Order: sequence, then structure tokens, then C-alpha cells
Amino acid sequence: MVAEIICVGTELLLGDILNGNAQFLAKELASLGIPHYYQTVVGDNPERIKQVLQIAVGRSQLLLFTGGLGPTPDDLTVETIADFFGVPLIEKPEIIADIEQKFALRGRTMSPSNRKQALIPETADILPNRSGSAPGIIWQPIPKVTVMTFPGVPAEMHLMWRETAVPYLKNGGWCSATIFSRTLKFWGIAESALAEKVESFLHLTNPTVAPYANHGQVKLRISARADSEAAAKKLIEPIEQQLQQITGLDCYGADTDTLPSTVGNLLLLAGETLSVAESCTGGGLGAMLTSVPGSSSYFWGGIISYDNRVKESLLGVNPQDLAEFGAVSEQVAKQMAAGVRARLNTDWGLSITGIAGPGGGTDAKPVGLVYVGLAGPDGVTESFEYRFGDARGRDWIRHLSSCTALDRLRRQLLLVKA
Amino acid sequence: MVAEIICVGTELLLGDILNGNAQFLAKELASLGIPHYYQTVVGDNPERIKQVLQIAVGRSQLLLFTGGLGPTPDDLTVETIADFFGVPLIEKPEIIADIEQKFALRGRTMSPSNRKQALIPETADILPNRSGSAPGIIWQPIPKVTVMTFPGVPAEMHLMWRETAVPYLKNGGWCSATIFSRTLKFWGIAESALAEKVESFLHLTNPTVAPYANHGQVKLRISARADSEAAAKKLIEPIEQQLQQITGLDCYGADTDTLPSTVGNLLLLAGETLSVAESCTGGGLGAMLTSVPGSSSYFWGGIISYDNRVKESLLGVNPQDLAEFGAVSEQVAKQMAAGVRARLNTDWGLSITGIAGPGGGTDAKPVGLVYVGLAGPDGVTESFEYRFGDARGRDWIRHLSSCTALDRLRRQLLLVKA
Repeated sequence: MVAEIICVGTELLLGDILNGNAQFLAKELASLGIPHYYQTVVGDNPERIKQVLQIAVGRSQLLLFTGGLGPTPDDLTVETIADFFGVPLIEKPEIIADIEQKFALRGRTMSPSNRKQALIPETADILPNRSGSAPGIIWQPIPKVTVMTFPGVPAEMHLMWRETAVPYLKNGGWCSATIFSRTLKFWGIAESALAEKVESFLHLTNPTVAPYANHGQVKLRISARADSEAAAKKLIEPIEQQLQQITGLDCYGADTDTLPSTVGNLLLLAGETLSVAESCTGGGLGAMLTSVPGSSSYFWGGIISYDNRVKESLLGVNPQDLAEFGAVSEQVAKQMAAGVRARLNTDWGLSITGIAGPGGGTDAKPVGLVYVGLAGPDGVTESFEYRFGDARGRDWIRHLSSCTALDRLRRQLLLVKA
Repeated sequence: MVAEIICVGTELLLGDILNGNAQFLAKELASLGIPHYYQTVVGDNPERIKQVLQIAVGRSQLLLFTGGLGPTPDDLTVETIADFFGVPLIEKPEIIADIEQKFALRGRTMSPSNRKQALIPETADILPNRSGSAPGIIWQPIPKVTVMTFPGVPAEMHLMWRETAVPYLKNGGWCSATIFSRTLKFWGIAESALAEKVESFLHLTNPTVAPYANHGQVKLRISARADSEAAAKKLIEPIEQQLQQITGLDCYGADTDTLPSTVGNLLLLAGETLSVAESCTGGGLGAMLTSVPGSSSYFWGGIISYDNRVKESLLGVNPQDLAEFGAVSEQVAKQMAAGVRARLNTDWGLSITGIAGPGGGTDAKPVGLVYVGLAGPDGVTESFEYRFGDARGRDWIRHLSSCTALDRLRRQLLLVKA
């Protein structure tokens, strides 16, 4: 039995809103083990909604509609579905009573336009909406097709889904299996290179292993289908271990781990502290580190040395080196890292200096050239050069710079530990 | 002529990611005046992609595909489309050369799996991808049907859309009327309050005025439909002027303006400089300021004083005040602002100290309590208290803190100017 998600709303076609409802339902279906192969967005237009219905009943058995249940004339979902199946609408007095009561609770009177929301197909059941005025329906208009409608307001939809739809689906034997996923996260390896390393795993069927990439990081999702979450986890475990063995240091964590949380855990384990000196990222590295709750245990702070005067006065960068090698250089990156480490009295000092663009690049030092400096507890200071190119712009270069600096520190912390 | 958006990717069916690509393309199509009535999401499955194609060619003339162009075996979009139309794929040497060069620039070698990305239908044109490896195609496989493919990576897709697809569509006569929009941006006023202030404008038909809110800021979009961009702009201009008059200081800019770019422009005008001292934002305020190219003209840097020792040693915050009033207090916010201004020798010093949570809150100082300190060229230092609540979490509190600090400085700069 296959589900299909149909989101109704001209605002989706205008791009005014993101389709968070489709994502929500997709995740929920996956976790219940109900397969779905298609999602459709259609405007508030009866003819087109019917065309979508025609296609959907031919390929899916559970049709989940969101949107178009409101009181205004452009909200047409339920009447269009009823019309498609040739079933008349009737006014349900219990819905009118419920809406009236909700308005009364807020000290308002129900608008005449809300009466429309009490019209549902004669043979349908009400899918109650506890937090809003528009109820949904649960309806089997023809054999082997079940239709559910939800309002487009996410909070209302979520509650209705969890309180009524999920129990209905579980009791009705819809939930064949559980799909459970675990996502391994990587930094410092391209998607194609990773895919080649783990090529044989990409052909598995249960669990499946699929690579994907976003925000410069690459992920491997391991998804297992089983009768229970515990059974699915058991299928995933050996595959995860093998993948970690193959990919080694490039894998920095899984699921909710982030580069800054992984670095934070390593620092906590080592009982060491960190400070940062930032030029082109302007504070972005510090912001990333402090995105982790509890980061104050190991992150003491930093110096944003956007102007060279600050590099000199607060970080002790040698003015002659600045003049000779430039602010974006191995030498300055090292002195920034060593300077902030000494100044803030931390175990580690991590620095970034680079050309984020769009201006300021030269042939020798193009936009995207970034140096990361790392000063460690052993007194050794190193510098690492990166060339991120200029194709994806300033924000991208700054983002990659901060992530890459964290990854550099992560590898160093693992090396020391090993 | 009608477009249709088809997003390919099992990760969308699993709910792993939000379909931002559909929203992006929907918005762009609306602004070009190209109607579209359907959006479809389908997994990386050749049979189902073909079914979706079959439906789409029957109802739309411009098919925009996103996703499934990667180097891994589950990326099947282009070969499936070619197969559907019965046209063989050929390897384009110019694509291989381009991918090889991109890898070389980053000091890497192209993987054999990337060769797959050079395969495109014999009769299709390349839609170049300047920032990633996978190119798209522009292809008219049969009369009255044009197919374009884009990678799923948003940054690559956006660039390809703007650089190649939009000019192609404009030259090809796809864009019937022009819809031109201008968006006014606000900080420090709620969406409902703004909507009430401009209520009479919300009923206009051309241009239309619509309020919306995201990331804590409120916007008013003025959209006009006309034969040309110039004619649309003429319709917008008087409405914009009236709206600005009504909303006054709460409107900080329009379109591509951001709070940091507006603040930057005001500082440039005044010929003044700025430094920041950050506690709970950990560098986020500096990162925001330096998101603006050229910000080095007025932003010199800052001190991330996440730990109290840094507040004392680098910002000169009085240890007794820290002990008596706490790090999150009016007194400390003021001393941080004055301290960084003095230390970095700038005209303005802007500071943030607060409780971002989830832990660390008390009854007297709950999560979401934030102080902004502002030290000005006149030697006066002020402090402002905000209570953002804890309902939307740590990232949200940190984001609001940085924006609010910038808005505070913006209002101060406007006051001084007036």
C-alpha cells in the first residue's frame, strides 16, 4: 500500500512559502514504514485538483492532502474531492458547534464564512482539528483508496496527524515496517571520491546506503527497513562499522553531530581549551563553535582582527611580516594563531585569514585563498593553505573556511589522542 | 506556455531535506510571468521518473528538473530523460575538461565516476555549471517541449538558473508579462502591527502589497504586473513612498539591503568606525557585519569574550561588577562596549551579553534575556535590555541578538545624523 502527498495552495506555486508540510509528512511516512513515491503541489483550482486526483488514484492507495480547508472562497479542497468522487457534501452540526465554541473561547463570534468548513462528504469521517477551526476528513470513497485532508497550517496539521491519523493508520494495518536511518557525516572528501570508496555498499538493498552532499559536507545515509526500530538498528550497525573503517578520519560523526560539536567533544575529552583569531570570517568561526550549548567549557573566546591594526595591536602580528607577506599569508596565519593562544591563555589557538571576495584578489592571491593557522599545547604552530575558488561567492568561502579550520583542529586532536 | 517543476531525489521522499529548490524556481517563474500549475517530487527511480515525464509532457511545455545529476549510481535524471525520448547519450569532451580543471583548481584529481556527468543527450545543449561539477541540459526533445535539468545543490542551481536559463527564457519569448517586485524590510515591528498600519494598501490589485515575515524580520512586498520592468517600477514608486512615510524608522531598507549593509552605509556616510564585543553570540555579530563586501572600511574587528576571564583581561570589565551583577547585566554590557571601543580605537563599540540557553537561565535572568551595549563617539555608553523568550531556542536568540544590536546602532546613527 502506497501513500501520496498532495499539497494544495497557490502560495506554493508562487514560491511564497516553503513546503514544510510535504517534508513533515514524508518523514512521518518513512518512520511508519509506509512507502510513498510521489508528492504533488497544485494550486487552488478545482479542475487541476481533479486531474491530480485522477493520477493519484491510479497509482496510490492513501492520498494525503494538505491545504485549502480554510473559510475563504479559494479554499476548495474538500468540495473538489467530493465532487470528483460524486458524493454530496453535508453540513455537520457537530463541526459548527465545535467552531462556535472555539471562537467563543477567544471572545469572538463565528463568521458566516466558517460554516463552509462544516461541509464534508456524506460518507466521510471527521478528522478533528483541536487547535484550529478547519477539521479534516478520513474517507474511503472507493475501494482501496483512502483520502485524508489536513489544513495547511503546520501546527494544526502536525497535531491532527499525530493524534488521529497515525493511530488510524497503525490500527488499519498500514504500517508494514519501520524505516530507520543513520547518517554518517564527512568533511574533507568529495562526494564522488567517497562514493568510489564505498562503492560496493551502494548496491545493498536492506539497509541501503546513499551518499549526498550539502553545505560542503558529504553524508552517507544508511536506511534499514525492519519490523521494529531495534531490528532496523541491528541491520545498520555492522554496515556503519564497516563504513567507518573504510572512511577513517574523513568521517567526523553521525546524525546530529556537527563539526563544532565533534571538536567540542574532543576538547572536553582532552580537557583542553580553545581560542580563535579571525580575519575574513569576521567571527563566523566563533559563532559556529558557540552554536553548541555548553561550549563555554572549552571555548574561551577570540579576537576578530578584521583590520591589520588589530592583528598587530591585539594579536602581536609582526608589522614587517604583514608588509612583506601580506595579511593573507602562512606567516600571518601562524602569528594570529600563536597570538590569540598566548593572549587568551588557552591550549589551542585557531586562526583564519583569507580573501573572501568579491574584490581584493590578485593573480598570486586569488579570491578563495585562505590560510588556517593552528597553535597547539606543544608550542608548535602550523599553517595550512586552501584554495576554495571564487565561483560560489563570499558567504560560501567564509563558510568553507570556518568548517575547514574546525576540521583541521579535529584531525589534530585525533592525532594527538592516537 | 506553462512550466512544470519536477524535483528528483529520494531524500525528498524520506523528508530528509526541505524542497527549497521548488520554492526558488516557483518564485523565479512568478517574477518572469511564466505560469506553472504543478510541482512534482519523485524518487531516483527510472520507471517513476518516466511516468512523471509522461504526465508532464501532456500538460506543460517547459519542464524544469532539479536533482539527480551527481556522479553516483543513484543519480539517473539525465539518462532517464534521454531514454524516455529515445535519444542516446554521448560523452562531451568539453564537460570532462571542465570537471578536470575544477578538480585541479582544488588540488584534487577527477574521479572516474565523474565521467558519468559528461554524458548528455546527443541533441541537447549544455547548461553550464560554473560552481560545481554536474552541468545541466537545455533540450527540446520534441516540438513544444523544452527540458532543463539542474543539480539539486541550491547554490549551483541558482547560479545556473540566473546565468543561463533566465536569459534563454527571456530571449525565447517565454516571459509574457513582467512581474516586478520591490520588498521593503523592517526591524523592530511585529507583522500584525505593520499590517494594521498599512491595512488600506493590502487591498490594492496592481501593484499588490503583501506582508510577510521570516527570520524575525518583517517585509512588505510590492508587486506590479506590467508590459515592461520600467512600467512596473512606475506603478510601484508612489506606493513605496507612501509606505515609507507611514512606517518611518522601522523600515531599514529594501530588496538586497540587510541590517549590516544599512548600518555599513550609515557608518561610511558618517566616516566612522565600529568594533564589537560579543559574549552569547560568540562572533555572530562580527560575522553578520563582515557578510558585507567592503565592510573593512568601517569595521575594524572585535573581541569574543565568551569566558569571563576574557571580559576582564581584554575588555577591562570590572571583576567586582561581574561578581555583583553577573555577566548578563546592564553594567557588563556597557563596560564591554566601552572596553572594545577603547581597545580597538574605533568611534563606536557595540556589545552583546545574554543567556542563549538552553541551560543557564534563572527566574530573575531567564533564557532569552539579552543586553546590548553601545558606546558612541561622544563618550556616552548606553545599555538596552531585551527578553526574547526561550520558545524558539538558542540559535534564534543568538540571531535576534545580533540583528537587534545592529538595529540599535542603526537608529542611533540616524538620530545623530538628524
